[in-house]
Amino acid sequence: MNIRNPRTGKCDYEIVNLSVDQVQKSCASLRKEQQHWAKSEVTKRIKVLQQWKNTIEKYKPALIETLCIDTGRKSETLLEVDLVASSIDRWCIIAKELFQPAARKNTTIPFIHLQQEWIAFKLVGVISPWNFPLLLSLIDSIPALLAGCAVIIKPSEVTPRFIKVIQQTIQEVPQLAKVFAYIEGNSAVGSAIVNNCDLICFTGSSATGKKVYEAASKRMIPIFLELGGKDPAIIMEGANIELATSSILWGSTVNAGQSCLSIERVYVQENIYDAFIQLIIAKAAALRLNAGDIDEGQIGPIIFAKQAHIINAHLKDAIEKGAIIKYGDKQCQEINGGFYCLPTILTNVNHQMKLMTEETFGPLIPIMKFKTKEEAITLANECIYGLGAAVFAKTDEEAIQVGSRIETGAISINDCALTAVMHEGEKNSFKLSGIGGSRMGPSAIKRFMRQKVYIIKTENINSPWWYKT
Amino acid sequence: MNIRNPRTGKCDYEIVNLSVDQVQKSCASLRKEQQHWAKSEVTKRIKVLQQWKNTIEKYKPALIETLCIDTGRKSETLLEVDLVASSIDRWCIIAKELFQPAARKNTTIPFIHLQQEWIAFKLVGVISPWNFPLLLSLIDSIPALLAGCAVIIKPSEVTPRFIKVIQQTIQEVPQLAKVFAYIEGNSAVGSAIVNNCDLICFTGSSATGKKVYEAASKRMIPIFLELGGKDPAIIMEGANIELATSSILWGSTVNAGQSCLSIERVYVQENIYDAFIQLIIAKAAALRLNAGDIDEGQIGPIIFAKQAHIINAHLKDAIEKGAIIKYGDKQCQEINGGFYCLPTILTNVNHQMKLMTEETFGPLIPIMKFKTKEEAITLANECIYGLGAAVFAKTDEEAIQVGSRIETGAISINDCALTAVMHEGEKNSFKLSGIGGSRMGPSAIKRFMRQKVYIIKTENINSPWWYKT
Repeated sequence: MNIRNPRTGKCDYEIVNLSVDQVQKSCASLRKEQQHWAKSEVTKRIKVLQQWKNTIEKYKPALIETLCIDTGRKSETLLEVDLVASSIDRWCIIAKELFQPAARKNTTIPFIHLQQEWIAFKLVGVISPWNFPLLLSLIDSIPALLAGCAVIIKPSEVTPRFIKVIQQTIQEVPQLAKVFAYIEGNSAVGSAIVNNCDLICFTGSSATGKKVYEAASKRMIPIFLELGGKDPAIIMEGANIELATSSILWGSTVNAGQSCLSIERVYVQENIYDAFIQLIIAKAAALRLNAGDIDEGQIGPIIFAKQAHIINAHLKDAIEKGAIIKYGDKQCQEINGGFYCLPTILTNVNHQMKLMTEETFGPLIPIMKFKTKEEAITLANECIYGLGAAVFAKTDEEAIQVGSRIETGAISINDCALTAVMHEGEKNSFKLSGIGGSRMGPSAIKRFMRQKVYIIKTENINSPWWYKT
Repeated sequence: MNIRNPRTGKCDYEIVNLSVDQVQKSCASLRKEQQHWAKSEVTKRIKVLQQWKNTIEKYKPALIETLCIDTGRKSETLLEVDLVASSIDRWCIIAKELFQPAARKNTTIPFIHLQQEWIAFKLVGVISPWNFPLLLSLIDSIPALLAGCAVIIKPSEVTPRFIKVIQQTIQEVPQLAKVFAYIEGNSAVGSAIVNNCDLICFTGSSATGKKVYEAASKRMIPIFLELGGKDPAIIMEGANIELATSSILWGSTVNAGQSCLSIERVYVQENIYDAFIQLIIAKAAALRLNAGDIDEGQIGPIIFAKQAHIINAHLKDAIEKGAIIKYGDKQCQEINGGFYCLPTILTNVNHQMKLMTEETFGPLIPIMKFKTKEEAITLANECIYGLGAAVFAKTDEEAIQVGSRIETGAISINDCALTAVMHEGEKNSFKLSGIGGSRMGPSAIKRFMRQKVYIIKTENINSPWWYKT
């Protein structure tokens, strides 16, 4: 299978799709080894993951190099690779606390004594996306490993160059290699994972997520879905416009808008609307594409060619329906074979446009004027997604009050997309943005385990006569 | 739709299936009212449920009467109705603790301040079975109501006579009636519930559970499934046989075996095998059908006619493959139009028989001899289900040690089916027995809520230049 380079448009890499038989064999081996992994103390699992962290550190240059080719961008790649070590440390600390002092909790209530135990799912299958190829392959895997599961991951075939490097890092930690495998492949390999694992984690589009959910339902196994978003930002009169414009510009254009937690629609109260637009245009105009030199500029290429077509379609639809481009592109530019899109600011937009209702996954900033707080809340909630939102107001309290009425799992207060930089608060996805336990906090590990209870009767309970001995 | 009476085989009751339109209207109204319900303090929801508890108490005779006709058995009906009040009290205590002191939890870590909040799912749909019609319609509903959800329930059309009474009890508590509805209907009504709710709880067969799961996956909504079981009992040498035989007889014949947590297969260590069989036959022979008089005997009718055919098929298959009936029936007896089955003890059974591998849901006690502990554990785990298990041994410690290797969510130690009488320890279903959070303990309420986080940045975090203000 030939893999396109997002900066050149040329296929310069190849992967071989694993056969269903190979996936089955790999899963069988992982499942077998998982028994020992789950039985070992959490401190041992933490030790193994710490060893792996050090190996990753050693391979950092190779990881950065391959991820830069996979994604065509550098600053986000450095961030992504840097986050690995701190993520592993954070999960290890949470795991240590979670499993202490004892895995079995004892409770005695009248007549009954209970012992409770956490039992890890045996084999977790992870299907991860192309927008943050490394980070989003680890976000489910590390907690699952710490819980005691074995894990098999298929990263997106759009960005597979880093896989060989990560496989090498795993091979250098033999105890980890027994229970943790990265594999290459297309959607057929993804199906083979769904058909051979005990729990599936999928991160990606809502359309594919739905297919994964249906496939899992046929096998009667649980799934965790982390899907699309269409995060709104609301800017109330009295907000710090200087801060709001900078923050929203970052939140909507980082990784060229290719994040589930991107700000994809902006609602500004009428009194500050003109000033807001003027300022964000000035700031947007200072950003540059990295098309010429990956080390320069802030906006990388659109990684997946099909996504460029979606961005173009959303722009075309909006323009046809009356949107005005105040700054930016009418469609993605093709430069040296790669697709690029400037931060693009649009006004005169409305909820009849795809741009305001469907996930765009590009650096577009459509801005709508609102009069009242109620109107803003209604617009924010008029959406099939419920991942996150941002609210800017004069005070944090006012912003929280507005945020409390927005149906999403995370609300950034006087800032944007804070879930990208903080991973502590537990949160769930609402509406079509996902299903399953929180990826943050202790729940992130707990969701990979089931509870088992041992029940001991300490006194005779009322029972039918033939039960009494 | 005509409803069969399990004691006479005659259709003596009728229900009208709600139209899809009616279900939609009911759901829309419940969803609207849910906003106020969720916003109110938990103490208010507790107060409303306590009022309802008192109303149920008032209607106890009518509830008992209708449930006795629905199920054809009395002692389990009394137990079922009695459990309502204590269940409501237990959930109310858990809810009060869970929501205290504050629904929003504050955390400050370096750079970030977090506020966390629980948000209830809006409308929970419950589809409940015929074996414990009242109890199993409440087991998901009460925690969901306390969480702040609205709830719509469709109990099984096999046992619908109690619905009118329970509807009356709800009408007498107007605040509850706004957010809580029982409706009558067949599987088409069930589908309408799946198509109009935000989360589905299904209790019933694995086959129907799979259909519900698939339907929910198409709508991208979460489900909780509580499905079949094939709970094993292991009796180790050194166990108290007197206790084990009484307990297993109860565990396998209560409600004529029509419980997911019934003991459906028994493994006895060779040295005590003969003594065990002799004793359990003697005890089983003392049990009587309640065919003549509902107030006499211990074994009620097979509630659902189709289930009698399954029991017959399992018996026929086992006999053809060499099973020996030591006591009981070769097939269900038809008495006055109802189907009845004696406690039926079989030996010479093996795992090629449906009786040992598929859910029977009847008062059959197939007993297999084993030599070693390892063999018993292997046999217990050779099963598509993973609900519960019972282990009898000389000491509790020895029983726990064996139980720790059985892949089920609950292990009764030196006793049977203790999850029927204790509802404290959190547990999950394994394998095909179910999916979703624990129905016991605080998780029972938590699973009906999602977490929302408000994130406030307290200091500037490292960010790209264009983000700094």
